[in-house]
Amino acid sequence: MGFDKKGSLISYRPDIKVMDCTIRDGGLVNDFYFEDDFVRELYHTCIKTGVDYMEFGYKASKAIFSDKEFGKWKFCTEADIRSIVGENNTDLKISIMADIDRTNFREDVIDRKDSVIDMIRVATYINQIPSAIEMINDFNAKGYETTVNIMALSHVNDHDLMEALELLSQTGVDVIYLVDSFGTFYPEQIRDMAERYLIVGDKAGKKIGIHAHNNQQLAFANTIEALTLGVSFIDSTVNSLGRGAGNCPTELLLSFLKNPKYNIEPLLVFIKEHIVKLKENGLVWGYDIPYLLTGILNRHPSSAINFIKEGKNDYTKFHEYLLDNG
Amino acid sequence: MGFDKKGSLISYRPDIKVMDCTIRDGGLVNDFYFEDDFVRELYHTCIKTGVDYMEFGYKASKAIFSDKEFGKWKFCTEADIRSIVGENNTDLKISIMADIDRTNFREDVIDRKDSVIDMIRVATYINQIPSAIEMINDFNAKGYETTVNIMALSHVNDHDLMEALELLSQTGVDVIYLVDSFGTFYPEQIRDMAERYLIVGDKAGKKIGIHAHNNQQLAFANTIEALTLGVSFIDSTVNSLGRGAGNCPTELLLSFLKNPKYNIEPLLVFIKEHIVKLKENGLVWGYDIPYLLTGILNRHPSSAINFIKEGKNDYTKFHEYLLDNG
Repeated sequence: MGFDKKGSLISYRPDIKVMDCTIRDGGLVNDFYFEDDFVRELYHTCIKTGVDYMEFGYKASKAIFSDKEFGKWKFCTEADIRSIVGENNTDLKISIMADIDRTNFREDVIDRKDSVIDMIRVATYINQIPSAIEMINDFNAKGYETTVNIMALSHVNDHDLMEALELLSQTGVDVIYLVDSFGTFYPEQIRDMAERYLIVGDKAGKKIGIHAHNNQQLAFANTIEALTLGVSFIDSTVNSLGRGAGNCPTELLLSFLKNPKYNIEPLLVFIKEHIVKLKENGLVWGYDIPYLLTGILNRHPSSAINFIKEGKNDYTKFHEYLLDNG
Repeated sequence: MGFDKKGSLISYRPDIKVMDCTIRDGGLVNDFYFEDDFVRELYHTCIKTGVDYMEFGYKASKAIFSDKEFGKWKFCTEADIRSIVGENNTDLKISIMADIDRTNFREDVIDRKDSVIDMIRVATYINQIPSAIEMINDFNAKGYETTVNIMALSHVNDHDLMEALELLSQTGVDVIYLVDSFGTFYPEQIRDMAERYLIVGDKAGKKIGIHAHNNQQLAFANTIEALTLGVSFIDSTVNSLGRGAGNCPTELLLSFLKNPKYNIEPLLVFIKEHIVKLKENGLVWGYDIPYLLTGILNRHPSSAINFIKEGKNDYTKFHEYLLDNG
């Protein structure tokens, strides 16, 4: 590999930051209808475990999405976040995510000095980079830390990616994320991608992040492989709670990281008290055959999500459907 | 890395052999009580998918273990295997496993020319190497292909391992296996271990195999990382069905391998018809918090298996128990 290994299995790298996205990515499983108690306990758990950032959800526009159809964490109003965190006088930073064209960011995002939010992450497809840059500039001007998350990376051609990275590296964005939306990459591909990001990032003084999905049971493996090369912002969700096959599990990530600030015990309590209950109440996420199939075929998980929701298990028929509808 | 990458993500390596251990490792979950129909359908599925070997179980001695307490695949009599495979006039090879001191191998293992079994795998701990060699010699003399599987590798010190590999490389054994019994290794450790095995194996003309466990959701990742360096015998089980957190899933492995001989479709049918039913009937295996904890602490999964069997979920108490009983 062209890149030297950063850090070791015994020591730790203080530059690594853990971002728990349980509410945001998990919200895609339950339309953001989390009980306040769940969100509040997760917030206190994140503080106690030493997680660096907690993402509360999306900043979607109520002019575009109905708050009758989605829970409050799709919209993340200042008041709703404050109802959980107060003034957030803690070391845990608060993040939200904004999608291109789904947010009324100029009006809905207030100045950071008046907000408890610390970071805004811009989720973008490759064909939306100029819009992403516009949002990044707005959020930076308002005083926020920012990241840009290039989604569906496995559908992006090399030339477009390199141009996007170049453009983004000229903005004030703090972190550029590698996002394996479809859970399709193998570790050697992730290492290759991470190197490209890191080369641009090192030159421009940007940190690199990773957001992985677990369609092929590789979310944790891909995450730590990227980390080993120098990626430093790591997305994870408690017990993988996230869209489709879910994400890199926070409990595995914290057990891997050796920084004494991280402590897995409060997370074990939270899983026992809250995650087990969600499962018992019928919320379904995590590795399953339909997600494996969309993963290996490099497809969006939506068809697999519907297949599972409908209680189907004719996997060969689903496979045929995917092959016929490329 | 000292070793060059073997093969690529687009081509395939004909030296790679897939060993489905579902009955053998899965038998550790249900005391080897599989219905004949399950075993027969799995046999036909292995043939149709192009899997290279199917392992039927252990060759345990009925003088040591009671056939009232264990199903027939703990003992793998010639008659029981033939009742499934007949003369096995197929390309699928039949394997069984023998533990040191748990098998009456001199009498119970007949000559290969009179058996439908093709391969016998010797499972050994590091302190049993001379006994393993005695068994390997006996099985080779009787005409079988053989492997030796050094279990609990994460408890073996480097000096002992290198001496064991040296001794084994002087026998007639065909394959030497790297076994992560406790699911404790990270990919970079697996790559390091695989290199040690491959250096000895290349010199002595032995193939190297890998058997992984999924305590940290790394069984598939560790398997393909080892494979990329030149490991060529790959253990897997359907949908991870195996002790504790289970194994590298056969369906993920076959979807990764590009050899046209492998075909995932029959496996999807088998999972739908048989694996889903096992789960509905209450058989429990696969990633769960207690296995994560034994994995990161490099412990045998038995205490986690009991904890889960008893329906407990006080993970912090279990963690404390593990820390107190090192």
